Amino acid sequence: MLMSAHLARKTPPGGPERAAAASPRADDPRVVRTRAAVVKAATKLFLRHGYAGTTMEAIAAEAGVSKRTVYNNYLEKDALFAEIVAGMITLAEDFARELRAELTQGGITAATVTDLLHAIGRRLALAVVNPEVVALRRLLMGEARTFPDLARGYYDRAPGQVIDALAAGFRHLADVDALGAMDAHRAAEQFAYLVTGALLDRAVLVGAPPPERDVIACAREGVETFLARYGARAKDGTAM
Amino acid sequence: MLMSAHLARKTPPGGPERAAAASPRADDPRVVRTRAAVVKAATKLFLRHGYAGTTMEAIAAEAGVSKRTVYNNYLEKDALFAEIVAGMITLAEDFARELRAELTQGGITAATVTDLLHAIGRRLALAVVNPEVVALRRLLMGEARTFPDLARGYYDRAPGQVIDALAAGFRHLADVDALGAMDAHRAAEQFAYLVTGALLDRAVLVGAPPPERDVIACAREGVETFLARYGARAKDGTAM
Repeated sequence: MLMSAHLARKTPPGGPERAAAASPRADDPRVVRTRAAVVKAATKLFLRHGYAGTTMEAIAAEAGVSKRTVYNNYLEKDALFAEIVAGMITLAEDFARELRAELTQGGITAATVTDLLHAIGRRLALAVVNPEVVALRRLLMGEARTFPDLARGYYDRAPGQVIDALAAGFRHLADVDALGAMDAHRAAEQFAYLVTGALLDRAVLVGAPPPERDVIACAREGVETFLARYGARAKDGTAM
Repeated sequence: MLMSAHLARKTPPGGPERAAAASPRADDPRVVRTRAAVVKAATKLFLRHGYAGTTMEAIAAEAGVSKRTVYNNYLEKDALFAEIVAGMITLAEDFARELRAELTQGGITAATVTDLLHAIGRRLALAVVNPEVVALRRLLMGEARTFPDLARGYYDRAPGQVIDALAAGFRHLADVDALGAMDAHRAAEQFAYLVTGALLDRAVLVGAPPPERDVIACAREGVETFLARYGARAKDGTAM
């Protein structure tokens, strides 16, 4: 959706016929390469200097192309910003798909689920509390007044999809008695913020992601707490 | 500290003697009232329109004072911004002190700790996932590039102090066997992000705080998960 808003603006004045005559096709390998270089340069500069602090000139210089080339591909800085956010969302969606596949694979039992959840907790924490995601979150929150749909779209399609994937996985694991009965969506939220919450919140406000060993320790302890409530042999916390 | 940086700038050109002759004392009730009105107006406008979107003129109009009065009290917009953040930090510090006192009071047992933690979880969630705090966090993120020390100071002295207070309380509760043995600081982080994490993250990115009943339900379930691991009769999660 973020992409399509941008793609819809790509037709230059003069209509598609003239565009086809004037510029190479979008799937031309040279065009693909150029666009990738521009997006990479823009990602680096937006995350480092913010939206207002990044000019199209600086992006062109960083990508090693002319400013005209940047404009030919994106017309406006906001379209480029939207494409960068869309790229980060795509990474999160791929990650969510992998999580879901892994959690719903056959053969997981109460005996093997602990190791699986530790591995997933660790991967999730390292994927979320990393310099690029932290910088993107700071950027999105900083620009949320100007681009509210980008921040909302990011939430729905990045953390939102990861939580949905965890919920689908936990539902399956409860069905096969590898985990106890639960409200799977609530359990998924708790899992996500147990393994990442404290470090992510600190990193986003302070601006410096923590050392990897802290992320791994936070994830491990978070998964232990999750299992104390939702493990197949755990007593339901309400009984206490 | 944020306050003192601002107070240090209050002496007008001409030195303190001239200031004393020219303006009423800082503890004059009229001065206190005026400053409170300016801070209240500035808080409202900064949280609603952001730092760049708020002018000293608009603050004066909102407070019902002259622009000259605003300048006489604050000189610069950044000093006023720092004072607002300091005010929010003071609220968090008061809250942290209350939490600490409540958790370290005498006579809490394994039988009464559940109700106490539910009450505290609920209050914490409602205090954190509220429109003013969410707006302040968005504002701090938006200005973190310009005022990195404000966002860092906010983290250390607002969520940071609340987590320290919870840790001190949990350490006491483990000592009197009202809770099980634990790494109290880790447990405090888990408590805080179990009861607030999912809703706070969503609210900050999406911009709309959730309905109160969702906050209360999230807190209740978060405390249950916390107790499953750290309740006096809970099995340690590592045993699973």
